[in-house]
Amino acid sequence: MTFPDHLVALVEAGLVLHAPHGEPGLSEAMRYPLEAGGKRLRPTLLLAVVDALGGRVADAVPAAVALEWVHTFSLVHDDLPALDDDALRRGRPTTHVRYGDDVAVLVGDALLNGAYGLVLHQLRCPASRRALVLGALVDGVSAMIAGQHRDVRPPAAPDEAWLKEMCARKTGALLRAAVAMAVALVGPAPSWEAAYLAVADELGVGFQIVDDVLDATGSDAVLGKPAGSDADHGKTTYVTVLGLARARALAAESAARASALVAALPGRPEALAAIVARVYTRDR
Amino acid sequence: MTFPDHLVALVEAGLVLHAPHGEPGLSEAMRYPLEAGGKRLRPTLLLAVVDALGGRVADAVPAAVALEWVHTFSLVHDDLPALDDDALRRGRPTTHVRYGDDVAVLVGDALLNGAYGLVLHQLRCPASRRALVLGALVDGVSAMIAGQHRDVRPPAAPDEAWLKEMCARKTGALLRAAVAMAVALVGPAPSWEAAYLAVADELGVGFQIVDDVLDATGSDAVLGKPAGSDADHGKTTYVTVLGLARARALAAESAARASALVAALPGRPEALAAIVARVYTRDR
Repeated sequence: MTFPDHLVALVEAGLVLHAPHGEPGLSEAMRYPLEAGGKRLRPTLLLAVVDALGGRVADAVPAAVALEWVHTFSLVHDDLPALDDDALRRGRPTTHVRYGDDVAVLVGDALLNGAYGLVLHQLRCPASRRALVLGALVDGVSAMIAGQHRDVRPPAAPDEAWLKEMCARKTGALLRAAVAMAVALVGPAPSWEAAYLAVADELGVGFQIVDDVLDATGSDAVLGKPAGSDADHGKTTYVTVLGLARARALAAESAARASALVAALPGRPEALAAIVARVYTRDR
Repeated sequence: MTFPDHLVALVEAGLVLHAPHGEPGLSEAMRYPLEAGGKRLRPTLLLAVVDALGGRVADAVPAAVALEWVHTFSLVHDDLPALDDDALRRGRPTTHVRYGDDVAVLVGDALLNGAYGLVLHQLRCPASRRALVLGALVDGVSAMIAGQHRDVRPPAAPDEAWLKEMCARKTGALLRAAVAMAVALVGPAPSWEAAYLAVADELGVGFQIVDDVLDATGSDAVLGKPAGSDADHGKTTYVTVLGLARARALAAESAARASALVAALPGRPEALAAIVARVYTRDR
């Protein structure tokens, strides 16, 4: 199972090709968080699913870039002093530290709006498919924001069910959107669609549990942000609510379920399988 | 020239019909700024242009509501402490004062994203027209955000040309979007499209000049927000840069030009004419 570095490279090339332009100061500030690197998990996942379903990967690049813009928008706004108040992301000052809180709000807004522009103006596909891709993106963002709201307004005593629901939205929504957008682009049989979405949903919860464990156990240098910030910020996470041992056990269970779901997939999910495995074995 | 109150009533009905739902706490916070009233200028303008072009006004309501959601998103983010830091809007505490800065960021994000959802899921029209409506909305939001960026990062010595460009984007972009979305829905001849867009562009600059004059000369009670706040905040406006007398003269010139453009319009622009006249004679 080889990790699909060629798909990550396609995403990176797409990000350069479709880099923000227009209003100079704003475009520069928009490029800053996009160029900060990161795993590019969501857009790579999108391309991997297009590949698995037999679609043309190159044609899907604008959709993948749009999804990364949306993910980046969510990070820029999440990092604001009004929300998580994080000064460091991927080893660099966050957008609001670099450009000011006011510009960071606008950068997030412009990235979200620009993502829709990319799908509308750059993605080549029939109008009916484009509408489905847009619908998958809208629904994903809507669910993500609902999850972020839960995150900033948790109940007094959150339990495991609440955590799972919150993560399914906050983190899972864009992973599901990656798969749903790929499905909308290629148009496989409904049974295939369900099987691929099931992988996305498992990955959504698993990714967040692993993230919470890494926050508690990783080092600043590897993470590119302060380790232990969840506990410091009083965040509601798998580790702070259920403890490290239980979180690790849940991550292992999720990894096993995801692996079984991937093994049963129709199509040619080799690249997808490598991405799923990496989510559970990564160190950042 | 009777003001089209029936179109405003349609907008209000549409806002109720398509009120945010879903995640309870977030939906409540999204409804708060939408229910604060306001002039509903942009959506009413959209419906008036559909009417003038001979389109079906009732069918355009979801597009009008989407545009008001976008306008409301821009107000919620503009009012944040990170930007204008306004505590009062339309006589009520602003969204971040009522629900917290974190929730206000998410409310704005959700309104912008939800606007695209409304056009995708609620607007009944052929897929090709829907794509044009979405394109008009994306381009409008993109230009508006560019204008907001100019507003928060003005040059050391802004002049009249800079002001006009800034206002054409910050304020004019959504008025242009109102007309462009209506045109996209109805599909008139290209010459008609250009004539209607010219009205929107004149209105964009005129509306902002009048706004700046009212901020300097109106009373708190009528405006529903603190009068004179532009000067207090050191904002770059027609009044603070050019003085009250010059701003008033420019408003009168814009009113005359807009009136002439409306008089020359093809179609049946009676409702539109009344809206344009109101923009220049309002007291809030």
